Amino acid sequence: MLEPIRPEIERVERLLHETLASVEEPLGPTLDRLLDGGKRLRSALVVLTGQVFGASGAPFHSLAAALDMLHAATLIHDDVMDVSPLRRGCETLHTVWPARAAVLAGDYLLGQATALIADLEHPRICKAFATVLRTMCAGEIRQMLVIRGRHRCREEYYRSSEAKTASLFAATTEMAGVLARAGGPEIAALHRFGREFGLAFQIVDDVLDLTGDEAQLGKPAGSDLRQGLLTLPILCYLERAEGDNPVNAVLSGQQEEEHVRAAIEVVRSSGAIEVALEEARGHVRQSQGALATLPDNAARHTLCALAGYVVERRQ
Amino acid sequence: MLEPIRPEIERVERLLHETLASVEEPLGPTLDRLLDGGKRLRSALVVLTGQVFGASGAPFHSLAAALDMLHAATLIHDDVMDVSPLRRGCETLHTVWPARAAVLAGDYLLGQATALIADLEHPRICKAFATVLRTMCAGEIRQMLVIRGRHRCREEYYRSSEAKTASLFAATTEMAGVLARAGGPEIAALHRFGREFGLAFQIVDDVLDLTGDEAQLGKPAGSDLRQGLLTLPILCYLERAEGDNPVNAVLSGQQEEEHVRAAIEVVRSSGAIEVALEEARGHVRQSQGALATLPDNAARHTLCALAGYVVERRQ
Repeated sequence: MLEPIRPEIERVERLLHETLASVEEPLGPTLDRLLDGGKRLRSALVVLTGQVFGASGAPFHSLAAALDMLHAATLIHDDVMDVSPLRRGCETLHTVWPARAAVLAGDYLLGQATALIADLEHPRICKAFATVLRTMCAGEIRQMLVIRGRHRCREEYYRSSEAKTASLFAATTEMAGVLARAGGPEIAALHRFGREFGLAFQIVDDVLDLTGDEAQLGKPAGSDLRQGLLTLPILCYLERAEGDNPVNAVLSGQQEEEHVRAAIEVVRSSGAIEVALEEARGHVRQSQGALATLPDNAARHTLCALAGYVVERRQ
Repeated sequence: MLEPIRPEIERVERLLHETLASVEEPLGPTLDRLLDGGKRLRSALVVLTGQVFGASGAPFHSLAAALDMLHAATLIHDDVMDVSPLRRGCETLHTVWPARAAVLAGDYLLGQATALIADLEHPRICKAFATVLRTMCAGEIRQMLVIRGRHRCREEYYRSSEAKTASLFAATTEMAGVLARAGGPEIAALHRFGREFGLAFQIVDDVLDLTGDEAQLGKPAGSDLRQGLLTLPILCYLERAEGDNPVNAVLSGQQEEEHVRAAIEVVRSSGAIEVALEEARGHVRQSQGALATLPDNAARHTLCALAGYVVERRQ
């Protein structure tokens, strides 16, 4: 599906590589390795959004690289604090470096991403970039300090997903639209597309945390549950389950491997996964609907197909 | 000395307060408390630099607030990783919040600082901001991974001080000069001023770590030594000391309180403190010299006096 834009994605990867590999050792080469091998979903969205409006070139590669760096920086800071040993199946940075150096490496990436954005000399894009960074952090902090451990409902789940995931996808397609000189209503449609795309993406991420195995996920299954995070599939299960069930056992502190495995098993066999995936498909349809007012061309069709792929992906 | 610009500094503080206190609980009020009570040295430099060129107003307050936030973000990330219990005599954020929330709060401040910079709609300032963030992080990482534990000399000390401290002061006066529409040579002079000011500031910080007490420092004395950091006063001592001395004992792992106290005592009584302070005064003179080509007015004289104060300060 992304074959037609492969050369563009490769240019983004070259820019990432050139920008990071030239930074002094050991920082540069380490970051370069770390950013190698992502899905480049944000890059694809930037390139495709540009193409919808017949725009392409170096500024789109810079924007894509900056968003990939922002995303990587948040992952580094997530991992160092979660003390996750694996990310994308590879050792996380803080298992190789002291935690403090890993935090600083994330900060460095934020600085490098800001530099790429600043080079665009486009105040609106710069503001959107700063806004999404704040939104993501505030959302994560809220999830951590306010929500966890308390009663949690769909409304809270969506509020979190919006802040920590959908906001970056929405900002990605919106910024690419601004860069492509799209009109106001078109930029609003792109924002809606990215937001719904992101919500579907998050739901599927949460489903995969329950249905995937360690090899696919690059980390142990059930990690949300272990952290007490009530994701949509778990909420779907709890809405219909008796109070005395294996999920509540894990949530109330029985974190041994057998209890986690039993909880995953009851969620899987309850039909909750399908209910959550159907909800994700609803967001995909919403996102596809938002594209209807944009110029009808091959790039738009690929965006539409990419949204559909989000629910089918296995990692 | 800063009495004439007190109303301007208060405006910066009001902007900091308004920006942060309005952020959702618990993040906003916590950051607001955290940023309360700093020295506002960077704010003073921004305001005074503007005034040298007859410029003032809201953009200078935004720049000052952004730099204070950037500085606070790096302190939060330093403290959380050093597991420092105190900063400015107050409990550090991560003693109140989980470490992960503290890292995210630092990220949030970086985002908020970037937003204030983006609002200036001044690409050159935005680029300088991104550059200094990268320089500071790369310098800290280098200090941590490459230098610590190995032979360290003045050259390395200055390289570190330049990256982690002087770069931000240099960027502060440079950005304020750009905002005040100073000419190219004047901006270069402002950069030199800030850089030398910052080097002197760092040396004095390192001296205070040995001569101050916990009440003044807001943290235990000798913390650099405990971390194996060879600061200038320690280097000055080691250059003349016998190999078998109390400082080397601490550096080779004897970290008990009595050993640290003995090491501080020999450095204090060796005259190394005065040698280091004399070197700091040299940088102060360099910084003051850089001001010579700028318009001769009250604000310039205050900048000059502020540089002199740096070596006299006790905290």
